[in-house]
Amino acid sequence: MTIKVGIIGGTGYTGSELLRILLRHPQVEVAAITSRGEAGEPVAGLFPNLRGATDLHFSDPDAAGLESCQVVFSATPNGVAMTQAERLLESGVRMIDLGADFRIRDKGVWEQWYGMAHACPALLEEAVYGLPELNRDRIRTARLVANPGCYPTAVILAALPMIESGVVDLDNIVADAKSGVSGAGRGAKVATLFSEAAENFKAYGASGHRHEPEILQALSEAAGRDPGLTFVPHLIPMIRGLHATLYFRIRDESPDPAGLFVERYAGEPFVDVMAAGSHPETRSVKGANTCRIAVHRRDGGRVIVLSVIDNLVKGAAGQAVQNMNLMFGLDEATGLDHLALIP
Amino acid sequence: MTIKVGIIGGTGYTGSELLRILLRHPQVEVAAITSRGEAGEPVAGLFPNLRGATDLHFSDPDAAGLESCQVVFSATPNGVAMTQAERLLESGVRMIDLGADFRIRDKGVWEQWYGMAHACPALLEEAVYGLPELNRDRIRTARLVANPGCYPTAVILAALPMIESGVVDLDNIVADAKSGVSGAGRGAKVATLFSEAAENFKAYGASGHRHEPEILQALSEAAGRDPGLTFVPHLIPMIRGLHATLYFRIRDESPDPAGLFVERYAGEPFVDVMAAGSHPETRSVKGANTCRIAVHRRDGGRVIVLSVIDNLVKGAAGQAVQNMNLMFGLDEATGLDHLALIP
Amino acid sequence: MTIKVGIIGGTGYTGSELLRILLRHPQVEVAAITSRGEAGEPVAGLFPNLRGATDLHFSDPDAAGLESCQVVFSATPNGVAMTQAERLLESGVRMIDLGADFRIRDKGVWEQWYGMAHACPALLEEAVYGLPELNRDRIRTARLVANPGCYPTAVILAALPMIESGVVDLDNIVADAKSGVSGAGRGAKVATLFSEAAENFKAYGASGHRHEPEILQALSEAAGRDPGLTFVPHLIPMIRGLHATLYFRIRDESPDPAGLFVERYAGEPFVDVMAAGSHPETRSVKGANTCRIAVHRRDGGRVIVLSVIDNLVKGAAGQAVQNMNLMFGLDEATGLDHLALIP
Amino acid sequence: MTIKVGIIGGTGYTGSELLRILLRHPQVEVAAITSRGEAGEPVAGLFPNLRGATDLHFSDPDAAGLESCQVVFSATPNGVAMTQAERLLESGVRMIDLGADFRIRDKGVWEQWYGMAHACPALLEEAVYGLPELNRDRIRTARLVANPGCYPTAVILAALPMIESGVVDLDNIVADAKSGVSGAGRGAKVATLFSEAAENFKAYGASGHRHEPEILQALSEAAGRDPGLTFVPHLIPMIRGLHATLYFRIRDESPDPAGLFVERYAGEPFVDVMAAGSHPETRSVKGANTCRIAVHRRDGGRVIVLSVIDNLVKGAAGQAVQNMNLMFGLDEATGLDHLALIP
Repeated sequence: MTIKVGIIGGTGYTGSELLRILLRHPQVEVAAITSRGEAGEPVAGLFPNLRGATDLHFSDPDAAGLESCQVVFSATPNGVAMTQAERLLESGVRMIDLGADFRIRDKGVWEQWYGMAHACPALLEEAVYGLPELNRDRIRTARLVANPGCYPTAVILAALPMIESGVVDLDNIVADAKSGVSGAGRGAKVATLFSEAAENFKAYGASGHRHEPEILQALSEAAGRDPGLTFVPHLIPMIRGLHATLYFRIRDESPDPAGLFVERYAGEPFVDVMAAGSHPETRSVKGANTCRIAVHRRDGGRVIVLSVIDNLVKGAAGQAVQNMNLMFGLDEATGLDHLALIP
Repeated sequence: MTIKVGIIGGTGYTGSELLRILLRHPQVEVAAITSRGEAGEPVAGLFPNLRGATDLHFSDPDAAGLESCQVVFSATPNGVAMTQAERLLESGVRMIDLGADFRIRDKGVWEQWYGMAHACPALLEEAVYGLPELNRDRIRTARLVANPGCYPTAVILAALPMIESGVVDLDNIVADAKSGVSGAGRGAKVATLFSEAAENFKAYGASGHRHEPEILQALSEAAGRDPGLTFVPHLIPMIRGLHATLYFRIRDESPDPAGLFVERYAGEPFVDVMAAGSHPETRSVKGANTCRIAVHRRDGGRVIVLSVIDNLVKGAAGQAVQNMNLMFGLDEATGLDHLALIP
Repeated sequence: MTIKVGIIGGTGYTGSELLRILLRHPQVEVAAITSRGEAGEPVAGLFPNLRGATDLHFSDPDAAGLESCQVVFSATPNGVAMTQAERLLESGVRMIDLGADFRIRDKGVWEQWYGMAHACPALLEEAVYGLPELNRDRIRTARLVANPGCYPTAVILAALPMIESGVVDLDNIVADAKSGVSGAGRGAKVATLFSEAAENFKAYGASGHRHEPEILQALSEAAGRDPGLTFVPHLIPMIRGLHATLYFRIRDESPDPAGLFVERYAGEPFVDVMAAGSHPETRSVKGANTCRIAVHRRDGGRVIVLSVIDNLVKGAAGQAVQNMNLMFGLDEATGLDHLALIP
Repeated sequence: MTIKVGIIGGTGYTGSELLRILLRHPQVEVAAITSRGEAGEPVAGLFPNLRGATDLHFSDPDAAGLESCQVVFSATPNGVAMTQAERLLESGVRMIDLGADFRIRDKGVWEQWYGMAHACPALLEEAVYGLPELNRDRIRTARLVANPGCYPTAVILAALPMIESGVVDLDNIVADAKSGVSGAGRGAKVATLFSEAAENFKAYGASGHRHEPEILQALSEAAGRDPGLTFVPHLIPMIRGLHATLYFRIRDESPDPAGLFVERYAGEPFVDVMAAGSHPETRSVKGANTCRIAVHRRDGGRVIVLSVIDNLVKGAAGQAVQNMNLMFGLDEATGLDHLALIP
């Protein structure tokens, strides 16, 4: 079987990462990749790592023939996918949105955090939040998958076993997260220039970040009520990688929290629970679709969970391909066996 | 007035940073810098940034004439200063230890975390913890100053106004801290090789780090009892800079926490309280003796405090010189007016 | 004496570096710094390293009162200074242009490389090329100084003693140069984003770069004819620092080339000739106004000269202040005694 | 067909890179990987990117059963492979040495540059220099392959078409080369600590480097006599990637040098000749087995050739696997289709 794939908005980092993965996927044909600005240009001109690997050219979205694809990945800025989803779904095309348009089911919350009116609220209910470890079965049959954000992926995976087990003080969860600069995208901005971001570390969005409601939505379902979570993201002077450090309080008589993770993620192809007391490194997943997690239990009921992903792979393009594999009945790991680059 | 200064253990990063500052200090003469391994070698051979700025040579500790100095900085690995302090103090030399030997007053706690017997417990009580913002008056008259660790400096300064004001839930404090690689020193270790530490981010010591008891000691005094603090350090792929992110819970009717910081640090020459909601950057203090702090208040009584220092300056050598200035009656800021290097 | 200084175009890296140096210069008052876009904003808002060091605000160029300054530094993009020089000089203000407008005396050559008509050719002849090691006496009395480019500074200093001594095969000089990313400025461009420039190395302008005619102009004067020079610049994944590697052929009976450098630069406050066979490091001059040079002689008449500067200091703002010191009769090193930051 | 493979000395960067490639090679079984120091330890404990990808443990060299392998890669420090080659070859095992022991056929030259007596001169003549673009046919049948050094690979590929065509002034070739820090290996040394190598650039070995005779040997064969080549390596503050900039002089009536490259490398699976005037970037080959080359022709007979590789892939482990594929009659590109990681 060969899946015919289209990509909308292929000039950013999630678009190029999709290509890196899909061009080597044994059961995929990339039929079209769109860009208004680069229409007609060879993809390998923009991304020199693809020289020799593809003859694809960017095409204009209106002439790309996306309707004849079986699945379309949207790697556009927030606010674009929601204007195209209905038409594509009506054409029988399934869609995986790597942006945020369908991640939050509550239209009001979405509009507050994203600062615009939602163009397609009718699909908010149908869209499936594409975290396979949470929604595997619903993803298989979904027409529209909302691929999770990078921070939410790392934080939710680090929190689920704690929340689901009911051992946690739900009112006191801290998620201190750190991401490489590629998470800010390929747009030209002073703040992400090399000379601004190198040899520097800072928090941002400490008064509130749009990934917080996305995290809360997933954790609320698991907890049965809204947890009290404080989430603060930071910018790391490196290209790829995301590290989440979560702080929980548990009751003294609680079972071994490390065991909860081992049990919860047994059989998961892309979650690696390390021995308790380990310190996962972001480089151990650089280029790979893996989330590595380690748990530290300290006295006084304190539990620290460390979680790392590659923000562009398990945090974006890799997870999107994992979702595609599920949607088309393939082995979930097909085309996703990259080993991280060390050093 | 010219202060005659000696430096013990000058081949590491705190030693070279002391030189960078002291060689330009208008009231200091560096009389000797010791190193057994490099004795006889010119200092500028090891640290090429000092070429042309000094003719100093490393001298053997036994022949360095440290007894004739007015103050000696010890920049040795932990466990060395405690073997030399008594002799120097008896010679009338005042001492500033940049290591950890005299930071913790409880001998048992110190020995547990540093894994050796304390060679000089008699001085533990006399040593003054050299955080000027906490102990300014005692530092002025101290014979022996224990210069704080880098993490403790950033964390304590970020916590003091919250703790002292009594508005905080003392049982739920999280300090998530991140440091550049220079904090690990100039020793040759695989873990801090460029190819291991670049493009990587990880926590370490998440099950317990020796800077935690040092932080707790200072905060306990301010709080009147032991607070429940969880401290986790991380390694940032950059040379200099340290960022602490603290999470507090306060009562709803609490006064504006940002105001507590403004008030507490009014007049402090090296603590810069930024406007509430700001995000201090580590590069804004690169090479400078400043700690910049910003406060974020969120609903539900959540307060986030962000604090940055240069781990080698306010976190080590700069603070040591600030202490020396106090001890010798100089303006506290003498020789410490470096502006951070941006970009 | 206090020199009243103005800065045109203060929002780029050379502008902020000028401030870092001038705010600590003992005989300077920065009276105005202009920026159309940031007029009215505090300088320390844009450059957080200057918080607490200055209350300056950016002013509109037309209202800045530059005519009442004694000297104005122009740190604008190429093409701006040439529109303002005449007016300022007529007002009795001396001018130091950190851009390229007055570096090349041949109007046709300038226009070819900079792609615009020169707005002020009348001053091309008067302008003094501000490399103190070459033109010290003329700089002292200059009204208008053309501050050299970063690459030309490192390359010319590495070539002068070889060229002037007449021992070199003038037809076979290679200058392979490498610069940190800050040389590309603070403009938002995709090519200098962190995620594009980190973990990457590339040449640019290998078919011809505008710094080549600038270098040739200086070397031609020293040689008495145009040398055959090939210059290729490269981009290093670091913020500051520039390294030039020059390759010469000399006659076998030539005198020791290292000695030529020692002799030529004896007494120069900012050129450090290291022992023959050394390898200068860019970090040894990070933040400092020094050029360090080392010479390697190999068999077959091959000579390699290594030269490092901080592109923003000796390659821009520091050299400009050195020129100002000369122009106003101060000690050439006043306010320029920064020690490089290592590590 | 499955090739049974052994690796000697698996704890360095070339060893781990061999594993990253070979564990995903469809026709390879890694039977053993040796390390005296880590014998008994799981490979994935040392290289966390391999967690879940292999159950291999390091074994003691004496108990590893290397004699039963079909091919053994030696990734040991220089001087070890030459003590083991004879025994392995006698057992019928073919050998690919990633070190330098068999790269230089002249025993005297080798001993001079490597500072030890050669333990196995009898095999120097038989060993085939494993640059497929030069020696493809001889590699197919070789028992012992000397895998080229990283610098020689990039420099020789950039020089061959120029040299072989006879258009070049052989007496005036400059090869200015730059490598990421991983080229220095995984040994703990101060010079390659993060805090020493980051934000820094320097040359090394400018008075003579051991890769120069290796380059000269290959170019001499192509030229029919010793060329006059000056080679200077530099250290780039990044992990992976190597860039060579070569400077040639050609006769004015020479054919288009870019065309020489296109013709010479037509059909080569791992040499990508870019359009004349391009600037290849090291990141375009990060993790890939490709060498990208671009040619610049300037007036006066000057030709500049730019060449990039990943020093650990085409410069070491990838080229070794390419050689293995040739030796065992596989498609040369089997298991080597990795796309470079951008960003």
